[in-house]
Amino acid sequence: MIRFNCDYAEGAHENILKKLMETNLEQTPGYGEDRYCEEAGRLIREKCKREDADVHFLVGGTQTNLTVIDAALRSYQGVISAVSGHINVHETGAIEACGHKVLVLPSDDGKIQAQQIEKLYRDHVEDETHEHMVQPKMVYISNPTENGTIYSKKELTEIGSVCKKYGLYLFMDGARLGYGLTAKGNDLDLPDVAHICDVFYIGGTKVGALFGEAVVITNPALKEDFRYLIKQKGGMLAKGRLLGIQFGELFRDDLYFKIAEHANKLAMMLKNALLEKGYPLFIDSTTNQQFPIMEDSFLETLREKYSFAYIQRYDDTHSVVRFCTSWATKEEDVQTLISDL
Amino acid sequence: MIRFNCDYAEGAHENILKKLMETNLEQTPGYGEDRYCEEAGRLIREKCKREDADVHFLVGGTQTNLTVIDAALRSYQGVISAVSGHINVHETGAIEACGHKVLVLPSDDGKIQAQQIEKLYRDHVEDETHEHMVQPKMVYISNPTENGTIYSKKELTEIGSVCKKYGLYLFMDGARLGYGLTAKGNDLDLPDVAHICDVFYIGGTKVGALFGEAVVITNPALKEDFRYLIKQKGGMLAKGRLLGIQFGELFRDDLYFKIAEHANKLAMMLKNALLEKGYPLFIDSTTNQQFPIMEDSFLETLREKYSFAYIQRYDDTHSVVRFCTSWATKEEDVQTLISDL
Amino acid sequence: MIRFNCDYAEGAHENILKKLMETNLEQTPGYGEDRYCEEAGRLIREKCKREDADVHFLVGGTQTNLTVIDAALRSYQGVISAVSGHINVHETGAIEACGHKVLVLPSDDGKIQAQQIEKLYRDHVEDETHEHMVQPKMVYISNPTENGTIYSKKELTEIGSVCKKYGLYLFMDGARLGYGLTAKGNDLDLPDVAHICDVFYIGGTKVGALFGEAVVITNPALKEDFRYLIKQKGGMLAKGRLLGIQFGELFRDDLYFKIAEHANKLAMMLKNALLEKGYPLFIDSTTNQQFPIMEDSFLETLREKYSFAYIQRYDDTHSVVRFCTSWATKEEDVQTLISDL
Amino acid sequence: MIRFNCDYAEGAHENILKKLMETNLEQTPGYGEDRYCEEAGRLIREKCKREDADVHFLVGGTQTNLTVIDAALRSYQGVISAVSGHINVHETGAIEACGHKVLVLPSDDGKIQAQQIEKLYRDHVEDETHEHMVQPKMVYISNPTENGTIYSKKELTEIGSVCKKYGLYLFMDGARLGYGLTAKGNDLDLPDVAHICDVFYIGGTKVGALFGEAVVITNPALKEDFRYLIKQKGGMLAKGRLLGIQFGELFRDDLYFKIAEHANKLAMMLKNALLEKGYPLFIDSTTNQQFPIMEDSFLETLREKYSFAYIQRYDDTHSVVRFCTSWATKEEDVQTLISDL
Repeated sequence: MIRFNCDYAEGAHENILKKLMETNLEQTPGYGEDRYCEEAGRLIREKCKREDADVHFLVGGTQTNLTVIDAALRSYQGVISAVSGHINVHETGAIEACGHKVLVLPSDDGKIQAQQIEKLYRDHVEDETHEHMVQPKMVYISNPTENGTIYSKKELTEIGSVCKKYGLYLFMDGARLGYGLTAKGNDLDLPDVAHICDVFYIGGTKVGALFGEAVVITNPALKEDFRYLIKQKGGMLAKGRLLGIQFGELFRDDLYFKIAEHANKLAMMLKNALLEKGYPLFIDSTTNQQFPIMEDSFLETLREKYSFAYIQRYDDTHSVVRFCTSWATKEEDVQTLISDL
Repeated sequence: MIRFNCDYAEGAHENILKKLMETNLEQTPGYGEDRYCEEAGRLIREKCKREDADVHFLVGGTQTNLTVIDAALRSYQGVISAVSGHINVHETGAIEACGHKVLVLPSDDGKIQAQQIEKLYRDHVEDETHEHMVQPKMVYISNPTENGTIYSKKELTEIGSVCKKYGLYLFMDGARLGYGLTAKGNDLDLPDVAHICDVFYIGGTKVGALFGEAVVITNPALKEDFRYLIKQKGGMLAKGRLLGIQFGELFRDDLYFKIAEHANKLAMMLKNALLEKGYPLFIDSTTNQQFPIMEDSFLETLREKYSFAYIQRYDDTHSVVRFCTSWATKEEDVQTLISDL
Repeated sequence: MIRFNCDYAEGAHENILKKLMETNLEQTPGYGEDRYCEEAGRLIREKCKREDADVHFLVGGTQTNLTVIDAALRSYQGVISAVSGHINVHETGAIEACGHKVLVLPSDDGKIQAQQIEKLYRDHVEDETHEHMVQPKMVYISNPTENGTIYSKKELTEIGSVCKKYGLYLFMDGARLGYGLTAKGNDLDLPDVAHICDVFYIGGTKVGALFGEAVVITNPALKEDFRYLIKQKGGMLAKGRLLGIQFGELFRDDLYFKIAEHANKLAMMLKNALLEKGYPLFIDSTTNQQFPIMEDSFLETLREKYSFAYIQRYDDTHSVVRFCTSWATKEEDVQTLISDL
Repeated sequence: MIRFNCDYAEGAHENILKKLMETNLEQTPGYGEDRYCEEAGRLIREKCKREDADVHFLVGGTQTNLTVIDAALRSYQGVISAVSGHINVHETGAIEACGHKVLVLPSDDGKIQAQQIEKLYRDHVEDETHEHMVQPKMVYISNPTENGTIYSKKELTEIGSVCKKYGLYLFMDGARLGYGLTAKGNDLDLPDVAHICDVFYIGGTKVGALFGEAVVITNPALKEDFRYLIKQKGGMLAKGRLLGIQFGELFRDDLYFKIAEHANKLAMMLKNALLEKGYPLFIDSTTNQQFPIMEDSFLETLREKYSFAYIQRYDDTHSVVRFCTSWATKEEDVQTLISDL
């Protein structure tokens, strides 16, 4: 069985495992107050060109989303998201469990646009019964999105402007940020992201780490007491150094971006093959997730040898599925798949 | 200024005020454990033909909705509602503040249909990642809806069947139940509602009381410890008898239905006048809320003499507005409005 | 049966009922935006000598406590209270249901002292693991306390100073404030309370109203968006004018204080009789709640004719009970009780 | 610097790291549905002699406590705990953030007794205002406790009986379970724990793993939909196999117990030395945490070479501190400390 169903099927990059072995019996303080977390934080701040940023390490994506969002909102405030946003669909109501409504915007490709946000916000404040409605206060975007699409610098800048104009916090879920920032056609870099967003995170789980997400907070209003919240939500790892060590390795010599590029390269190889062989793509993704439309009978055959994600029915005889590559995907496995298509 | 903007612009029916005066200095136990609440509960059970029902009195609608829904759901479970449902739009996130997601279904007229519920439920359980999604466990409908439309017995029975089939609780928000059950074309009665729903409430605030909603619980699973929840959510009125006295009066000699009928009659008078005079109706309502589409310039004139609710823009020069009648509306006021149209 | 078990056994002062009758068919806007609420707010601001205060009207005490406290705290922050505080004991976990821990201080008489608060706060910030603990951010006191005791101006001033010093909000639960401010030996007045507290409420339910509590917010940090929270928590009364009318009457010609004084006078009559007849008092209260220690066998006899609250066992043959007077208690009923002692 | 301040200063047992290396590039399904989790679950069920138990793997202790407790309680229900319980003191209000009150019992040594639980429960149900109070529904104990003490089989059996009698769930926090079950004088084993408790967890973080806690649920009422809650609370690790691999190694050939015994042996060596040298012990612990009372001036000297936890002031010149050994502590480090005492 060759797995293309997700980008977290394997363990971690070898550098990380090596470093974990080397440092295993070293004694450090707990809860992220060790020198590895300090160093990893420094590396990330440098890459972001934001000396003033706070960097925190959490274990997983849902945990990170709920902690960041709960840190930002008062109880009657909500977070704006694409209807397809991970927080709206795939976190078992984690945001609502913290008391906050997800205010959804329609989206075909996983992205939302500045004008949509502006309209939602203005509709709220102009409604004479707005006190009877959830007050929008944060915008959540994922980049790349759940559909593999990415924001351009222009799009992100416009969203950032609208947020600033109306006092909305902008939060980017970067669970797959590496795959986005190294995608063909991408014109954003980490300093842009850190400049435009109030808070974002750099995903490790899906990009080379055993686990871990690095939250970068640039807006001072969101920095206060953030560690209280990490602890309360169950996200403060006792042996916090495990996170520092991993992000230290990922951000040494741009490893994070190199391995992300590898995944994208293989995804483009697959994408081209799919198009050549006449499989239409449900969404035009330039990152490590590809969404071909395939005949159901063929999918059944494919399933004997490969795992991939079922997305949705397309028509009576076709479905949309997802193939993921990752930092660990072998080129030979992609070649085998291509020859089976 | 003549107010047609809502159905809670006046105080209470005179019988209620009279009884409040008469009993004012009587000493009773607090928190709904007095003889007036007992009697009102008995009257309501009789009208519902459900001796086994639990009846609780709360002060207002949002409070009632959040208490009932929180009583029914575990923290990872959600409540299905029309996108236009009061809990989704006009309660400042009260349900989410209790930790629960509102799972929305599209709706043009405020109603949802059994097939929509079935599809949402089956999509959930059949999704291989369903543990990553909010589990549907309750269905919320309002009758009449926020749009003034009503469910037929057939529609409600079908919804009830789907709910039973999949173990979903059915909850009817009856903030305006009186106006629904006395509407032209309605074929539901209280025993039907009590038979089909697991829990529902009979709205007093909008139908003749100073305030108050009577929750009727027929499903034993929802009865347990309900009073703990009323207290926790801040809904347990110290002088609970005020609620018992009001519902006692409303359910004596069918006062509740008689005054609701009055409002509907005036609404139909207005509806007919609107249609005659060529104002299109945004929604075809048979209850006390009417939604004409009117020219903006004319609305400005009307606003000098009348208050009404602005609903939404229709086109560049027209808007949808809402006129409400109530148990207290005077026929002469409706006549004045009609002559001004 | 003569009821001394609580101070909410009767309805409302006659002036209130009269005004409700007079205004019953008047049409007003809903949700507290009517002229009666406006006038009542103005009267209260005047009495408090705080033109800048925000005044909001809610229906009941638990609702008020949870709304105010949730407005003040971020999710990892807690509220300091006497172990006997109403929010800690008698609100079915309403504060915790909003996500906040009640941080308890020991108390014999229901009061807490400035030094206790200071110690708790300093212990928190000086603990090297403070991020693993709930951060104290608000102080809750009730005046009179659940035990009928009152704070002196000196005590309240000291508490206020500690709160200011450490950035803690001071919140006074004034469910029985009238009885406190008119008690023998009291040296506080409304302007003092408004000056020292960041937020407090003036209880109506137990002092002459059918229901209702007037929240007075003087700290600007607590004012923002408070109405969103009232709505979300289910505390925004549709016919909000009912609250405005009641507080308007209570604060016209000092009615609130006059009727509170009546209750205290009768309580002192009872207290003196109890002491004369040799019944020890569990707590030395100068307000409308009295806590004698009585023999169990005698209590059984008393119970045939009177209702009163059981507080706790004192020894094998004695118990502590509570007798309450109220604005509505008849002097002849107190005399009858005294003669039966 | 030699660290005795906690039992999570190092990484993981070498067997675990070795296995992580070996399996690193293997592809597995995510979210705990891989063969390593399956095998680890099987091993744990065997050791517990409970084929019917559900076993789930979570990352850390606070996360586990909040997930288990939220799974068990309706919103008006609370969990009984020693005042010193981890959930009451050191989790930044994680339980309250899920909406539940911690109902505290006094304790000198970290343990609570069956009679205390029974009294608290009966006081609740016998109180006529019990609907105004949080309903006790679960009992939380830690074994070993935060003070290093352990429950005897007799004590645990009695607690279990009271819980069964009153329908309370019994939950054991086993963050340090290994150190408890291998302590001198302990007469409990895993099958006892699994038999008596409704749910408990076997701590990995503090006993040889990089991280991880294995939740064992024996009561069917607590099993339903538990994975939904793990996901919602942010505790579902994407690469779940990391947990399966670790617990697989720990429960192969009793490694878990062997390494726990090592820590206890060193702790007893230290304890004997402390007693011999005349340092009184604040609490008589037989597990890996020791609590000597030492002069402040001496502690300052010690601090130059060792790290240890400050617990509390004992008198003007003495303090209580905590020294922890762990599975990784070197005997030579303990000898060095002893010779410095």
